[in-house]
Amino acid sequence: MSLKYLSAKLAQQIDEELMSAAGAFSIDQLMELAGLACAQTLARVYDRQKYPRVLVCCGPGNQGGDGLVAARHLGLFGYQPTIYMPKPGSKDIYQRLKTQCDNMKIHTIPPSNTLDDLKTALTSSDVILDAIFGFSYKPPIRAPFDAVLPLLTESKLPIVSVDIPSGWDVEKGNAEGVGLQPDVLISLTAPKEGARQFTGRHFLGGRFVPKMLEEKFALNLPEYPGSDQIVELSQAKL
Amino acid sequence: MSLKYLSAKLAQQIDEELMSAAGAFSIDQLMELAGLACAQTLARVYDRQKYPRVLVCCGPGNQGGDGLVAARHLGLFGYQPTIYMPKPGSKDIYQRLKTQCDNMKIHTIPPSNTLDDLKTALTSSDVILDAIFGFSYKPPIRAPFDAVLPLLTESKLPIVSVDIPSGWDVEKGNAEGVGLQPDVLISLTAPKEGARQFTGRHFLGGRFVPKMLEEKFALNLPEYPGSDQIVELSQAKL
Repeated sequence: MSLKYLSAKLAQQIDEELMSAAGAFSIDQLMELAGLACAQTLARVYDRQKYPRVLVCCGPGNQGGDGLVAARHLGLFGYQPTIYMPKPGSKDIYQRLKTQCDNMKIHTIPPSNTLDDLKTALTSSDVILDAIFGFSYKPPIRAPFDAVLPLLTESKLPIVSVDIPSGWDVEKGNAEGVGLQPDVLISLTAPKEGARQFTGRHFLGGRFVPKMLEEKFALNLPEYPGSDQIVELSQAKL
Repeated sequence: MSLKYLSAKLAQQIDEELMSAAGAFSIDQLMELAGLACAQTLARVYDRQKYPRVLVCCGPGNQGGDGLVAARHLGLFGYQPTIYMPKPGSKDIYQRLKTQCDNMKIHTIPPSNTLDDLKTALTSSDVILDAIFGFSYKPPIRAPFDAVLPLLTESKLPIVSVDIPSGWDVEKGNAEGVGLQPDVLISLTAPKEGARQFTGRHFLGGRFVPKMLEEKFALNLPEYPGSDQIVELSQAKL
């Protein structure tokens, strides 16, 4: 009985079941726990004394929402997050999460037509949280992100990716070679097929899957230690 | 600059500001973080090997909602929670949180007109989580809780109270002498005036107060350690 790696379709189905009438979760709850797990993973690996300045890169979908939640928690943890969000999401929750960050006095790079602001931000960052694309991403990569990803890579800053490294196919991994090469990956709910190719430090978060769902999909999730919201997969009892 | 203890009115005002259009939090988010902090506090003090069976007592209001969130997380932490909820809340969120517990296979004592079920449950519990009344409670205590509180006390089980021990006046404390005498208190957002009388282990949770609000109300919150969601007040840098 080994840990299940999810296809894009199965990840989508589990997400829908969690938020169905039967699952009864709101997106606010799940995103809060997911984003908290992302922030805690970054804090576990990159000490805030040595890596205080976190560039949180958010995509326009739910993955970007996780990033905004993580940015807020990182601010509460004493980091100095900056949000880079070239295509803000249009959903109400996305805008509320952004306002919560504003209230935390977290700086957001204003949208612009050039990448100069991103370049400048990278020179004054210590680590990147990549919350650009999640399990609903399908190649090819579109503007402006086709230009953003290479800049993140060229910065040579350490990268923590959420759920699947941005630019990777959810199932085939970095087959096209245009994806990020993060140092740390935090899979949410369960790892995705593509993450089998990942060789850095791999964490799991999203400690909210009810037993019924875990059994239904034979996820064989590892044991989280104590009351932690994350577990490092290489160290877990699988 | 010392930690501020809140009046009932101020606690209410902070809650409203957090959830206003300007504060932008949903009750789902705040309750999730609050309930998680309650579960983590119980887990910090009462080891699941020695105290596996937690009786989670929920009132009909938001405090009861925190209890339901805590019950779910305690289940995920490996405890065996049982929910006692003689007057279920009518709000939609309350019912969703209850469904989430059902999906975790957490047992809820069915409502009845007698206290026999509670008495039986107490004989097979190791610790009580008291999420009956919160900062909107005003004496006198009403049925069935006027009979429930003495039973909890008589059980001599250790009690972890959420925000303010049930039966205490939010400002005057246990002036009427009908309140619980918990071993552990987890204050949420900031401690309430009445908690000054509390002499057991005192934790703070609700690590979501934005700097702007903390400054506006001069809360002088303690520093939470690392990425923890709780801080023990007696050990905090105040």
